[in-house]
Parts: sequence; structure tokens; C-alpha cells
Amino acid sequence: MPLGKDYDSQDCSLARSLELLGERWTLLIVRDALYGVRRFSDFLARLDCPKAVLSERLRVLVAAGVLEKRPYGDSPARSEYVLTGKGADLWPAIYHLGRWSQVYEGAEAQRLFFHAECGTRLTGPVDCPDCGAVAVGDIEMRPGPGARRTDPVSRALAGPRRMLEPVRL
Amino acid sequence: MPLGKDYDSQDCSLARSLELLGERWTLLIVRDALYGVRRFSDFLARLDCPKAVLSERLRVLVAAGVLEKRPYGDSPARSEYVLTGKGADLWPAIYHLGRWSQVYEGAEAQRLFFHAECGTRLTGPVDCPDCGAVAVGDIEMRPGPGARRTDPVSRALAGPRRMLEPVRL
Repeated sequence: MPLGKDYDSQDCSLARSLELLGERWTLLIVRDALYGVRRFSDFLARLDCPKAVLSERLRVLVAAGVLEKRPYGDSPARSEYVLTGKGADLWPAIYHLGRWSQVYEGAEAQRLFFHAECGTRLTGPVDCPDCGAVAVGDIEMRPGPGARRTDPVSRALAGPRRMLEPVRL
Repeated sequence: MPLGKDYDSQDCSLARSLELLGERWTLLIVRDALYGVRRFSDFLARLDCPKAVLSERLRVLVAAGVLEKRPYGDSPARSEYVLTGKGADLWPAIYHLGRWSQVYEGAEAQRLFFHAECGTRLTGPVDCPDCGAVAVGDIEMRPGPGARRTDPVSRALAGPRRMLEPVRL
């Protein structure tokens, strides 16, 4: 049953965020942007979603200020999609949704998260058990037991690397 | 463009949780369950979504072990939907999604969260700045500036009250 955009009467901050982020694929795009994916073809390689859907979701995320479209290259001129501070601040919500399905749904972690400075494994999205608050860019990702995708972008993301560090194939 | 259930190749814990929770209304149902809503008619009063949609979403959440259907009353026999531990553990993700739109989308908080024991306002989903970790049931909700809904369930939820405390109209 199609419902349209009828969260209006909800008058609720969660409803407001779902209005933007609740579309299929949208949070997975933000997840990949947090991991350093920036280019249309790289998102496409990771997401297996139709091109038209990816285009539309990226457009909405740019309009909402979650991603910023930034030109690169000259011939041909291209653009990449860079996470803004507003976008990066979706990390705690995305972390907890992923963690929840690992705990309760038997999903295996594709990657594990460590404080890059001290090497301690993180037990929350923004807190190092040893050092306290950690910025997203100070988190190091390492492959987890669930890492099985073999597309080139996923392979580039597999090694130990900082979050937000741009993927360059 | 309808996409169907095609997150399968994502092989990702976030995708797994969105498969269950990404449907329109689902996370709002879990939000209300966290606030203490348990009865079909009470969910309906708060959510303004079609009855058939609410039934279907509740059924899926029961099947997934997020809610438990529990009988109450004799004539007529009725059931209420009680959050399980698995369901309650969605609180950090829901908190962060709501908080994000308050920070970035100008959404006003419908309610503010305090550690019931000491009265300190919480700055995260599970941590009291004064006392450390806080269980969901030890969080007290108080009305925030965005609380404007006037249905009976929302009014019952407006006063200071513990999270998970059942709404009884």
C-alpha cells in the first residue's frame, strides 16, 4: 500500500529524519560515504542498485546537505560526492543499526572499528574505552569476519584504513 | 521505482537491520513502544497510519522478536504488544536519528530525557554525564518544546514518566 509522504502530522524528530533517510538505499549510501566512497561509479559498484535510483538518492542527499557535490578532473569534468559534517554526524545512528543486527540477527561484521591513535577496539560509535571521544576521521576500519564482497571498491575498503579517507581506484 | 527486497547481496549488518526496520512507520512504532505504548488502538491514535499497515508492521515486528504479543483482559480477550529486550536495544539508533534531525533539520524535541535516579539531563542514549551507563527503563521523559500532539495517548505521554512504563488510558 503506497503511503506517500505522510509523516507530516508526526511532528517528531525521528519522523523528520526518516522522511529523508528512510528511503531504501539512502542509509547505505551514507554508510559508504563514511567509509570513503565518493564517486558515482564506486557507489554503484558497492550497492547493486539501479543507476536511476542511485542518481535520485544522491541528488536528494546533496539537496539536504548530507553530501556535497565537488568537481574533480578536467577532461571530462566529473563530480564526486563528499560527506558534509551533517552527513558524518549520521555515524552514531548507522553504527547502532549495524551493531544491533550483529547482536540480534546474526549478521557478521564486515568491518571492525578501532581508535587509530591507540589501536583500541571501539565499543561505541564515538568513544574509545581508553581515550574518550573519537572523531569519525580518527577511526580505523579493519576487515571483519563478514567481509565477503569482491568488487574493486570493496577490496579497496578491505585493508586497515581510516574512515572518510577517499577511495581512489 | 519498486525495488523489492534486494538488499541480499549487500552482506552488511546495516542492510540487515534496514531490511526489517526500513519500512515506513516501523521505527515510529518501535519509538512509541519505547515510550510505553502497547495497544493497537493506542499505536493507531499516535501514528495516523492506515490500520492495515499498522497490523502488518506489528506482525512483522512480532515475527522478528522486536515485540511480543501478550494477552490481557477476558471479555473480550485482547492482546498488547510489549517491547522485548531486542526491541529495547534499538533505543540508541532511534535516539541518534531523532537527535540528528534536531541538530540539523531544525526539528524541535518532543521530549527530553533525564536519568530518573539523579535528574541529570542525558546527552547520549545510554550514558548519564554524572553516573555512567543508564538502562532504558531508568530514563525519565519530560515534555520538550516540540510536544504539540493532542491525542489522548500523546497527552498521557506528556508528563514526566519513565520510558517503557505502560500507557494505560
